[in-house]
Amino acid sequence: MSVIVENYTYTDRIAMRKVSIVGLGQTKVGEHWDRSLRHLASDAVLAAMQHANVDRADVLYVGNMLSGEIAGQEHLGALVADFVGLRGIEAIKVEAACASGAAAVRQALIAVASGMTEIAIAVGVEKMTDEVGTSVTSGLAMAADGDYETIHGLSFVAINALLMQRYMYEFGYQREDFAPFAVNAHANAVNNPYAMFPRPISAEAFARAAMIASPISLLDSSPICDGAAAVVIVPSDQATAFTDKPVRIAASATATDAVAVHDRHDPLFLQAAHDSAYKAYLQAGIGPRDVDLFELHDAFTVMAALSLEATGFAERGKGVAMAQNGEIGLDGRLPTATMGGLKARGHPVGATGVYQIVEVAQQLRGEAGANQVPNVHWGMAQNIGGSGATIITHILEALD
Amino acid sequence: MSVIVENYTYTDRIAMRKVSIVGLGQTKVGEHWDRSLRHLASDAVLAAMQHANVDRADVLYVGNMLSGEIAGQEHLGALVADFVGLRGIEAIKVEAACASGAAAVRQALIAVASGMTEIAIAVGVEKMTDEVGTSVTSGLAMAADGDYETIHGLSFVAINALLMQRYMYEFGYQREDFAPFAVNAHANAVNNPYAMFPRPISAEAFARAAMIASPISLLDSSPICDGAAAVVIVPSDQATAFTDKPVRIAASATATDAVAVHDRHDPLFLQAAHDSAYKAYLQAGIGPRDVDLFELHDAFTVMAALSLEATGFAERGKGVAMAQNGEIGLDGRLPTATMGGLKARGHPVGATGVYQIVEVAQQLRGEAGANQVPNVHWGMAQNIGGSGATIITHILEALD
Repeated sequence: MSVIVENYTYTDRIAMRKVSIVGLGQTKVGEHWDRSLRHLASDAVLAAMQHANVDRADVLYVGNMLSGEIAGQEHLGALVADFVGLRGIEAIKVEAACASGAAAVRQALIAVASGMTEIAIAVGVEKMTDEVGTSVTSGLAMAADGDYETIHGLSFVAINALLMQRYMYEFGYQREDFAPFAVNAHANAVNNPYAMFPRPISAEAFARAAMIASPISLLDSSPICDGAAAVVIVPSDQATAFTDKPVRIAASATATDAVAVHDRHDPLFLQAAHDSAYKAYLQAGIGPRDVDLFELHDAFTVMAALSLEATGFAERGKGVAMAQNGEIGLDGRLPTATMGGLKARGHPVGATGVYQIVEVAQQLRGEAGANQVPNVHWGMAQNIGGSGATIITHILEALD
Repeated sequence: MSVIVENYTYTDRIAMRKVSIVGLGQTKVGEHWDRSLRHLASDAVLAAMQHANVDRADVLYVGNMLSGEIAGQEHLGALVADFVGLRGIEAIKVEAACASGAAAVRQALIAVASGMTEIAIAVGVEKMTDEVGTSVTSGLAMAADGDYETIHGLSFVAINALLMQRYMYEFGYQREDFAPFAVNAHANAVNNPYAMFPRPISAEAFARAAMIASPISLLDSSPICDGAAAVVIVPSDQATAFTDKPVRIAASATATDAVAVHDRHDPLFLQAAHDSAYKAYLQAGIGPRDVDLFELHDAFTVMAALSLEATGFAERGKGVAMAQNGEIGLDGRLPTATMGGLKARGHPVGATGVYQIVEVAQQLRGEAGANQVPNVHWGMAQNIGGSGATIITHILEALD
C-alpha cells in the first residue's frame, strides 16, 4: 500500500470553535453499596446540569470501562440518558480502559467544537464493588493484552510492579523513595469532601505498607472504588450565559502505544504521554513551564513518575527526585494530585478522567478551597489507559 | 432547573464539511475458530485501507459490544491500532449494544466533518464464539435493562418474543406471516461471498423451524457469529484522490429511547428509529420515498417490521404486509437486506452497523454483483441497539 496523495497536509482543528466547561458534577468516591451504576452516573450528571443551570443537552457521552464485566450492564448511553430525564438524545458509551473518562470528555468537546451540537455532557462512571460478573482483578486485566500478557498470569498490578522494579534498577531508587507521591496525594485529599481517603499518611507508613506485588505496596496503589463525575460543555462564546466562571478547554489530544509493555520501544518511557502532551502544548500555544498544576494519573506511584518524565516536567529518571524535592506539593513548582489524585481521591477507573478535569476546573475557577493553588491560569489533566497504551491530555484555561 | 438561555437556537452541522467513504473492508461472517478478535478487526481494517490505497489514518474508532465479557479483552482501540501498523494514532472503542458499529462510523465521520482529522477509520468487530468469560446469551442480555428486565430472567430473544407476540395480537398476524423477511434475506445472501448462510430457505422451512422463545423460531433469528467490517472516511472534496467511486455520507443521526421496553410510550413503535430516520431525512434533504434501498436491522423478523413502520416506509401494522406483498425484494419498491441482512449475512453484534454501511456503499458503487439494485442513488442503513433504545441512521449518496 502506498499513499497516493503526496502533498497531503495535516491540518489541525479546521473550522472548529472554542469550547468551555460550564458545569461540574461529582459523587464522593467510595464503596457505594446503596447506589447502582445508573444512580451514580445520574447523580454526577444532574449535579453538573444544575451547576450549569441547564435542563437539556444534545448529546451524552458515557465513559466507562467495566460495566459489562462487573455489573452485567452494557448500553450505558441510552440507560443513563433516560434515567436523568434526557430520553431521546444521542448517547454513546466510549471505552479506553482507565482513560475512558477523558475519552468521553474529548468526544463531548468534539461534538460541540465541530458545530454539531450546542450542549454536550460527558460523564465518567465506574461501579467496581457489587461484582455481578467477573472479579475486579480479572476486569482490570482486560486493559492489558489478553493474548500476550494476561494469559501468562500477569495481573494489572503485576505489570506495574515490573515497571517499578525496572525503574528502580535503571535509575537507582529504593521503593521507599516513591513515598512522596502517596504522601502528597493523601495530604491533599484531606480537604476534598469527595475523596475516598481524606486522611494523611506518613512516609513511615508507606515504607511498612503491606506488599501487593513487589515492589508495589498497598500505599503505592489507587483503590478499588465506585464513583462518577460529569462536565457540561458549550461553545466558549456562549459560556458566560451559563456561568460566570467558564473554563476553556485549550487543548485535547489522544495518543496510543502498544498495549503489551514488552512491545514498546522503551518500557520506561510513556511515548503516548509524550505525544499527547506535546500535541496539547501545541494546541494551547504553551510549554510545560507554563502549566500551573497537573492532575496526573497516579494509579501507581511509578506511573506518576513516568508521567512527569514523559510530559516534559522532569528529566528521564528524575520524576521521583522531583517529588522528593517537594516540587509536586500545593506550594511546589508543579502542584499535582491537588484534590487527592487517584491514590487518595480514588480511582473508579472509567470515571477518573472526568474527576481529573472537574478538579482542574475547580482550581481554575478558584473554588478548590483549602487546596487552592494561587494564580493558576493553565491546568493540565492526563488520563492513562492500561500501562500506557492510551493517553489523553487536556489543558484547561481560566477565564481571567 | 431551568434553561437560562431563552432564545437558544439549535443549529445542525455548523461549519462541518461533507465527508465520503473511500474504502471498504469486511471479513466473511461465520465461526472463526482460527482468528482472534484482533485478527478479525485487522483483516477488515487492512482490507479497507488497501481499498482506499492509504497506509495511514489519523484516528480509529472501534465499534464493539462484548469483547470484555466474552473474550476478556477491553482497550480495543489501542490494541487494533497497533496490530494494523498504526501504533500511536488516536484510537477509541465505542459501544451502544448492537448499534456499536454504526456508532463507530458516526464518530469517525464527525472527526473528519469537524475538520479535526483528515483520514478516519471505523471498524466494527465482534467475536461471539470462543467464550473466555460469560456466555453469549448473558452477554447479549446486557443490551437490555439489567435491573428491570434481565434480573427477572428475560433473555434478549425473550424480549423480542414478547414484542412479536404483542405485534401479532395487535395487528392480526400469525407467526408464519413473518416468513418473507427471512426468505428474502436468505435469497439475497446466496450471492454474498461474505455471508454466513449463503443458501435459500423456503416459507415452509420457516413455518416448521425449531422454536426458541415463542413465537420466535430459529429462522426469525439472526445467528451468533464472528466478523468485522471497516470503512475509510475522508473529506468529500478530496475523495476522488482515493477512489473513483466515493460514496458521500449525506446524513447521520442517533436517537435513544428507554432501554426497558415496559418504560416506552408504545412498545410497538420504535420512537428512536423514527427520530433518527427523520433527522437523517432532514439532513439529506429527502424523504422516505427517495430511498432506493434500506439495510434494516433484522436481528429478529419483528424488528424488521417495526423498522419499516417507524421510518416511514409502511403504516403502523403494515410492515409485515409490505414484506408479504413482495415490496422488500431486490426488484421491489424498497429492497432490504440486499446482501443477506442480519438474518443470513449474520449479526456479529458490534460489527453489524459497519457491515450495513459497507453493503449500502457497495450498492451505490454498483459493485453488488448479482444483487445489484438498478439505478440506486440514496441508500439507508439503520442499526438498532437493544430492543430499540439506541438507533442510528445513515443515508449514503452515490457520486453520479
